[in-house]
Amino acid sequence: MVTDQQARVQGLTITDLIITPIAFADPPLLNSWGVHEPLALRTVIQVVTAAGVVGLGECGGGANRLNQLNQVRSQLIGMSIFDTNAIEQRLLSILGTTGEAGEKDGSVGRSPAVSATFSPIEVACLDAQGKALGVRVVDLLGGPVRDAVPYSAYLFYKWAEHPAHDGSPAITDGWGAARDPAGVVAQAQTMIDTYGFGSIKLKAGAFPPDQEVAAIKALAEAFPGLPLRIDPNGAWTEATSVRVGHELAAELEYLEDPTLGRAGMAAVARQVPMPLATNMCVIAFDDIPEALDLGSIGVVLSDHHVWGGLRHSLELAGICRTVGWGMSMHSNSHLGISLAAMTHLGAAVPNLSYACDTHYPWNSDQEIIAGGALEFVDGSLPVPPGPGLGVELDPDALARQHELFVRSGRTERDDTGYLRRSQPDYDPTLPRF
Amino acid sequence: MVTDQQARVQGLTITDLIITPIAFADPPLLNSWGVHEPLALRTVIQVVTAAGVVGLGECGGGANRLNQLNQVRSQLIGMSIFDTNAIEQRLLSILGTTGEAGEKDGSVGRSPAVSATFSPIEVACLDAQGKALGVRVVDLLGGPVRDAVPYSAYLFYKWAEHPAHDGSPAITDGWGAARDPAGVVAQAQTMIDTYGFGSIKLKAGAFPPDQEVAAIKALAEAFPGLPLRIDPNGAWTEATSVRVGHELAAELEYLEDPTLGRAGMAAVARQVPMPLATNMCVIAFDDIPEALDLGSIGVVLSDHHVWGGLRHSLELAGICRTVGWGMSMHSNSHLGISLAAMTHLGAAVPNLSYACDTHYPWNSDQEIIAGGALEFVDGSLPVPPGPGLGVELDPDALARQHELFVRSGRTERDDTGYLRRSQPDYDPTLPRF
Repeated sequence: MVTDQQARVQGLTITDLIITPIAFADPPLLNSWGVHEPLALRTVIQVVTAAGVVGLGECGGGANRLNQLNQVRSQLIGMSIFDTNAIEQRLLSILGTTGEAGEKDGSVGRSPAVSATFSPIEVACLDAQGKALGVRVVDLLGGPVRDAVPYSAYLFYKWAEHPAHDGSPAITDGWGAARDPAGVVAQAQTMIDTYGFGSIKLKAGAFPPDQEVAAIKALAEAFPGLPLRIDPNGAWTEATSVRVGHELAAELEYLEDPTLGRAGMAAVARQVPMPLATNMCVIAFDDIPEALDLGSIGVVLSDHHVWGGLRHSLELAGICRTVGWGMSMHSNSHLGISLAAMTHLGAAVPNLSYACDTHYPWNSDQEIIAGGALEFVDGSLPVPPGPGLGVELDPDALARQHELFVRSGRTERDDTGYLRRSQPDYDPTLPRF
Repeated sequence: MVTDQQARVQGLTITDLIITPIAFADPPLLNSWGVHEPLALRTVIQVVTAAGVVGLGECGGGANRLNQLNQVRSQLIGMSIFDTNAIEQRLLSILGTTGEAGEKDGSVGRSPAVSATFSPIEVACLDAQGKALGVRVVDLLGGPVRDAVPYSAYLFYKWAEHPAHDGSPAITDGWGAARDPAGVVAQAQTMIDTYGFGSIKLKAGAFPPDQEVAAIKALAEAFPGLPLRIDPNGAWTEATSVRVGHELAAELEYLEDPTLGRAGMAAVARQVPMPLATNMCVIAFDDIPEALDLGSIGVVLSDHHVWGGLRHSLELAGICRTVGWGMSMHSNSHLGISLAAMTHLGAAVPNLSYACDTHYPWNSDQEIIAGGALEFVDGSLPVPPGPGLGVELDPDALARQHELFVRSGRTERDDTGYLRRSQPDYDPTLPRF
């Protein structure tokens, strides 16, 4: 007997993978490499099934990701949305030898290109599974251990506006400038007032460390009791990292990527009182054994876009629990499909030890999902009630942001090149301080 | 709008957990502790939902497991079958401090009691999910990377019959005795002829090592090209282990638990040419860090009954892939629900590097699932086509084996005590040789 459900499952083969590059406004946020450009690039994918169910995924933008998604597209046609393990193996056979920054020797059978390309496809397949079956993605991951996932206020040093260039006018935003402790505290106040976040992360590496230390101390004074973090993206020497670690011993819950490399991180870790966190020196399963041997870190900032999707992120969570690492979550500029996926994942991880990072407040005003931006409640995002990820595309909004991408002519993110338009002598070589 | 699917999901709360202890005939199989008793004990659980869907799980027998399942039973009522993460947390709160052999300090939030009790409940919930949604359990784990899972011929030294005791008559079986290399080869021939297995494992530790080495060499000669393994369950000293490792350098794909303890295993591992495998010195996530530090093993024999279910077994697979360990699968005496679960899991693990162990040929003649024993094809078990685990209970058979359990009066497995009825001076202290 073929039940209704089985008939539906049998129709859940992939008939198309629609790949839509988009762009959306991004404020001039500073980091150790430069400053965010006026447009952030992103890619939306739709896994279309014979039964008409469509699953959504979102990942980074740029030519590499687009090329790789296009390269695998035709090979997915005819596969089942339930066959994510087999899809990953197929991607490995197509992209496994694709060169990409940070690629390892493939000894454990993966590459960053495979993980990054597989991630939005896996998420879209899980979304389609949930939508077809009437369950949430979190239910496909073992179910929630929390109803809402806490996020942190992700602060950036920033300019008041994108400067006028090449005939383009300056572009302002509602946030104003943040160049000193007072500006950082004001930004935090706005963000906490608006979203209710209960933790604060400061993206650092943009100004001399003393100035950034002062900003953290000002945040601690303005928001007593709120957990604080600072992330200079490897901009500091070992000596600077150790000095900052001691100066902020009372203020930080963790110190994120103060310096580059697993050996450098290990050296700092031995000398500072708080755990070191990373999304730079451990970004793939291959990186873990050496980080364990050296003692480089105490917290992993997971990111399903980087680690190969939601199920591999659960494996990472299992590794963190096993080796005693804390688990937090990294973010790049993103929209609601990614946020929904992060939230379904975060709800299913018992050992999610920290509030997750998200850029969402910086970018959610150009949302492509129906109904507009997802809403935080007291600093947490409730798990969308589903089915699937619980979000649907707004086709007009998607078309609008795709058009913005096309008109931009952009294919890569270049924070350094963009900063150099204003400061031609800017040297992003790390460590900076 | 509430769809049909959502309505069905809403009915998938647990209304009962039916716990049925069973017993089934087991041949007199020898190991380093003694010999299998005439009856093996096992426990079948049924997770019953409001919607009428019932999910099946199977785990070890004995008073401990029964007591713990009964202890948590009422606490599961009203939870959703999709909430396996939350169910595990609830079990942890109930059983987390339960003493059980091998229990750790709970620093990573688990205990063997929780893992062993959660496992059949998680499997039953996944079975019920699959049955409710019309998908296979393997589909809920990322889908199959192989259509059938290879198993090994699991050979035992054995007596020709269970001897007469206390007025009970002797019990014979169709396998005959295996006490020497010729008997072992004959047993292998029967098992391979019947099931088509392409790998061979010999349970050892029952006779002096030279005799067991001779059996492996006889198997290698009789079945050229078939991968071979030997498992004395820690019966050997370090020196004996190293000597056997060298004598069987050409024959073994891995050497399983030659000696006790992670330190002892590490010492042996440094001196023998083949990887060491274990289901004794790494049986929980807590055990992994020290095994990594020491270099104790090269292969983990996973077992979802021990490691806390199917999803945690996928985490273990991720760890194996990450640290470069091979992955195989351990078995105790079991019936078809367990075999189906092992097969759905094994089909979803890309890095399942070896054919899995199974006792099934020794016990499958008293099957409790409808249709009788699952059938191997060329040494592999095809993934049951589902939905769920793809197996259903035979209520009459379940009642028959439960009655056998009740009449037996047995509550524990005692291989040593049973052997001592025939050899009162038997000393199972390890190492034996």
